[in-house]
Amino acid sequence: MSTHKDRLAALRDQLARQRLDGFVIPLTDEHLSEYVGAYAQRLAWLTGFQGSAGTAVVLPADAAIFTDGRYTLQVREQVSGDDWQFVGVPQTSVACWLGEHVDGGARIGYDPWLHTRAWVDEASAALADRDAVLVPVDANPVDAIWPDRPAPSPALMTVHHDDVAGASSAAKRAAIGDWLVDKRADAVVLSALDSIAWLLNVRGGDVDHTPVALAYAIVHADGATDLFVAPDKIDDVVRQHLGNSVSLHDRTRFESTLRDFAGRRVVADPAGSVAAIVHALEAGGATVIAQRDPVLLAKSIKNPAEIAGHRAASARDGAALTRFLHWAATTCPAGTETELSAAAKLLEFRQASGLLRDTSFSTISATGAHGAIPHYHVTDESDAAIEPGHLFLIDSGGQYADGTTDVTRVLPIGPPTPEMRDRFTRVLKGHIAIATAIFPDGTMGGQIDAFARRPLWEAGLDYGHGTGHGIGAYLSVHEGPQRIANPAYPGGQALEPLRAGMLLSNEPGYYKAGEYGIRIENLVLVEPRAIPGGDPDRVMLGFETLTFAPIDRDLIDPALLTNDELSWLNAYHAKVTQIIGPLVEDEVKAWLLERCAPVG
Amino acid sequence: MSTHKDRLAALRDQLARQRLDGFVIPLTDEHLSEYVGAYAQRLAWLTGFQGSAGTAVVLPADAAIFTDGRYTLQVREQVSGDDWQFVGVPQTSVACWLGEHVDGGARIGYDPWLHTRAWVDEASAALADRDAVLVPVDANPVDAIWPDRPAPSPALMTVHHDDVAGASSAAKRAAIGDWLVDKRADAVVLSALDSIAWLLNVRGGDVDHTPVALAYAIVHADGATDLFVAPDKIDDVVRQHLGNSVSLHDRTRFESTLRDFAGRRVVADPAGSVAAIVHALEAGGATVIAQRDPVLLAKSIKNPAEIAGHRAASARDGAALTRFLHWAATTCPAGTETELSAAAKLLEFRQASGLLRDTSFSTISATGAHGAIPHYHVTDESDAAIEPGHLFLIDSGGQYADGTTDVTRVLPIGPPTPEMRDRFTRVLKGHIAIATAIFPDGTMGGQIDAFARRPLWEAGLDYGHGTGHGIGAYLSVHEGPQRIANPAYPGGQALEPLRAGMLLSNEPGYYKAGEYGIRIENLVLVEPRAIPGGDPDRVMLGFETLTFAPIDRDLIDPALLTNDELSWLNAYHAKVTQIIGPLVEDEVKAWLLERCAPVG
Repeated sequence: MSTHKDRLAALRDQLARQRLDGFVIPLTDEHLSEYVGAYAQRLAWLTGFQGSAGTAVVLPADAAIFTDGRYTLQVREQVSGDDWQFVGVPQTSVACWLGEHVDGGARIGYDPWLHTRAWVDEASAALADRDAVLVPVDANPVDAIWPDRPAPSPALMTVHHDDVAGASSAAKRAAIGDWLVDKRADAVVLSALDSIAWLLNVRGGDVDHTPVALAYAIVHADGATDLFVAPDKIDDVVRQHLGNSVSLHDRTRFESTLRDFAGRRVVADPAGSVAAIVHALEAGGATVIAQRDPVLLAKSIKNPAEIAGHRAASARDGAALTRFLHWAATTCPAGTETELSAAAKLLEFRQASGLLRDTSFSTISATGAHGAIPHYHVTDESDAAIEPGHLFLIDSGGQYADGTTDVTRVLPIGPPTPEMRDRFTRVLKGHIAIATAIFPDGTMGGQIDAFARRPLWEAGLDYGHGTGHGIGAYLSVHEGPQRIANPAYPGGQALEPLRAGMLLSNEPGYYKAGEYGIRIENLVLVEPRAIPGGDPDRVMLGFETLTFAPIDRDLIDPALLTNDELSWLNAYHAKVTQIIGPLVEDEVKAWLLERCAPVG
Repeated sequence: MSTHKDRLAALRDQLARQRLDGFVIPLTDEHLSEYVGAYAQRLAWLTGFQGSAGTAVVLPADAAIFTDGRYTLQVREQVSGDDWQFVGVPQTSVACWLGEHVDGGARIGYDPWLHTRAWVDEASAALADRDAVLVPVDANPVDAIWPDRPAPSPALMTVHHDDVAGASSAAKRAAIGDWLVDKRADAVVLSALDSIAWLLNVRGGDVDHTPVALAYAIVHADGATDLFVAPDKIDDVVRQHLGNSVSLHDRTRFESTLRDFAGRRVVADPAGSVAAIVHALEAGGATVIAQRDPVLLAKSIKNPAEIAGHRAASARDGAALTRFLHWAATTCPAGTETELSAAAKLLEFRQASGLLRDTSFSTISATGAHGAIPHYHVTDESDAAIEPGHLFLIDSGGQYADGTTDVTRVLPIGPPTPEMRDRFTRVLKGHIAIATAIFPDGTMGGQIDAFARRPLWEAGLDYGHGTGHGIGAYLSVHEGPQRIANPAYPGGQALEPLRAGMLLSNEPGYYKAGEYGIRIENLVLVEPRAIPGGDPDRVMLGFETLTFAPIDRDLIDPALLTNDELSWLNAYHAKVTQIIGPLVEDEVKAWLLERCAPVG
């Protein structure tokens, strides 16, 4: 097996063969997915970096890897500093770095199926200052030197039944058609895999953690849809489900079809469509209308069937997590378990339901100092023993046919320090401040994000990630367009107000580098709230918490909680026992009742 | 004197003479000022509308006036619904309305000295859908039919001395020069009157409430500056103060000078420069660089001399307001005073210092239902008696050579209702939540705005304006780039994080239409905060409240306040007595001590 140094050298040779003076390697796929199939893991193969976001640039003499603040430590552990410069984004953009490092007149290659047009324009402008140019490649040079590159997954597309989806695909497509008429557009190109899955009520198995199938779709103003997908993914059941209004095409015909829209108005999401799509539409004479993927908002607002499904999945998942927490409380103090063994145990509890389809992301099982890395990914090399004196953080979720979950708990191994309890209680106060927030319809998540931070800010502390992300219904664990985040945080700008029916995480945290990490995460549903005595014409919203598992009482300092906060905590724990109690064995239930007894 | 109906008819005749099918009349001047001189009050002259923000559009058959939510009621009282349609912004933009109402092929005129290029582009695009065009006029058609239009003010420019300004103009201009070098630009065009006043350490008397002189400036990369101003505004004292590095030109030469920058890179703020400036630069062959006016950020961060000046002005102003509040508490219950007589009395108290240069805006003296109009402007016609059962709201400020003030208090005339006390106390809780906020360096005002709203939101209430605006040092009562506001509120998007040295208002409110209005406004200074035990590398900020006057205790329900909130209130009132007590007469002082005694 070649080393990463060998691969970098091989790529430089390949670039020379393709007459390029450099190449940009993002971590994404042709759908700009967050999680990508093994076939698209070019960045990891080339550099060794295992994080979920990053970009590499290879020049003849320089090579740089760009990561955000979540991966500052991790990239230095996984990637050789001898061969690669480490660059932080967004402080330095790839475009800006390129503008400063390329030679005059250089030809820098990029794969037009892996970048947005906006990225191409920005990078081209930066290169123009050096008389250098950005050149689209027909074939990705990394693929040319990757001998054992995995083939795209052959998994079958499956039906997501209407009763679970809560609306038929025909109804959803008709609504998108109406939207197109309103925009005076003839068609919309969908390339986000979860948008296509939601619209057609199908699922797939092509991407880790997200039940989607590799495909593209073009929806027309009458709701008729062209679906581009590898033919061997489609069986008769799916073909019948899709019906006559969905025309099936081989995925390889997608690009040429985009060239057939001469004189027509076609919507493509500038943030969600790769440059190659926009290029092909323009080359064919279509008028490209830059509008956000219309599925995003529709998908974010859960219907009653999806909410009911989520409640069922959440209770099932909460029972598995509660069994795990009981197991961990009993077993971990002996010091014989590790991050990997604990994560395996949790998976076992989830699988015991017989309904788990996948984990919704790679479980973050992090003890001690590893917990201070918010997106820590345990490997055989990093696997650490869970020992007394540690805080053990477990952030995990499941994919079930009726819902997607995401939950984080922290438990102390042995008695926590007063500082740990102070920090945990402040994070809990922030969590409660979101859980109990009431706000007018139209409020953006970024407006309430600081509710979660204020108790930390008052102590001169903060956390470097958002407070809440949208989550799918048996779909992506992260979805937009809503967020609860500082608008200045990378990607944190919420695109839509919080609306009734949206499902989000509530996950403030605190991280002390080299020592411990804390995060308390539940999912919350936005719901209308009638406030007696309020202004009659003002529609107010609030959150219903839908995740149930005990919050560790040994980490809570009741003296720091107000009476209202104590009431919330005790009411929450009462509901945990009510929902989870009947689902677990007597031994676990006895433990649960004790852990959920009123505090304060 | 012609009626507004006559004026509208005359304008339509004039448009026909200028071969136009419509015209747009914004409320601004060539500097895009918030407050404008009488010569630029075209909107008020044409329509009768007295609010501070609005736009009119006149077409052959339609005429519409566009105002935001602050003026929904007022515009209907002041402008004839027979002649004018009322349109709300931002729900319907002027551009959008034009696109829907103009005839195909129409020529719609605009004054290029009163609109930004972005507005011109947006409106042109909307008109293009109807094959209509936007046409710049050489002479404003309103001016042609306005026989007694006031001439621009002849007031002299004056020197703002370096010891009060805290930095010499030469030092300020050198810093702008460095900024230009950093941007690889040759010059910057300044058209905001307060930017020019700040940069040159001069003031003027050309605009109500804001001590600025009508002028333009072009600053070069070496700090040398061309100042375009009417020659008779400049006396020898100012000429000597400006020195050799500032070249004086007649204001009429400004446009032609802009055409002399062929081949050079010139900065113009796209939000602050009118289209005519950008047109002239481009016509002359300059490369226009769109960057925010570099003075904005520099001006917003007050230096020690400006802060010391503000403290002195604030104490002086607080003494005047306290005398007024004592007078009002003593006099108003008899029911013999009115909004106008009260405003006159407050002006008298401010003038008694001998140092008042102007009010910083038109005093909002609003009793009862008028208080529910956040920007109510009392006139002879609207003047209402202040009577028992009312809440009386007074929002006012002074311009002093050492500082600009802005403060709002509410007092009950006779016993308030339980609802009034509940609402007032919630507004107070929001005010305290801002006053006591601690937040990391880099926080945008929009992130903490909801701290002020949460106590109202919990009761199903809210207020329809921002929580805080920047304020100048003997300059504009409203200045950017910082704000504490919902980013979605018109103009509410903060352009800069809160930084140490910035001065802002803290003014949550509550308005019950037809009944009463509440607002509690103090000014606060952003200051660094050392938090013992906090993360050592995290710079935290907080606010120091700089406005001192009693907050009416009869409107406070102590049962709604937490212990921390009571502590803040009592500490604030102790400081009011300490700072204001020595400045007022014994009778007022005795009253003040009683009003500031501990609550709760």
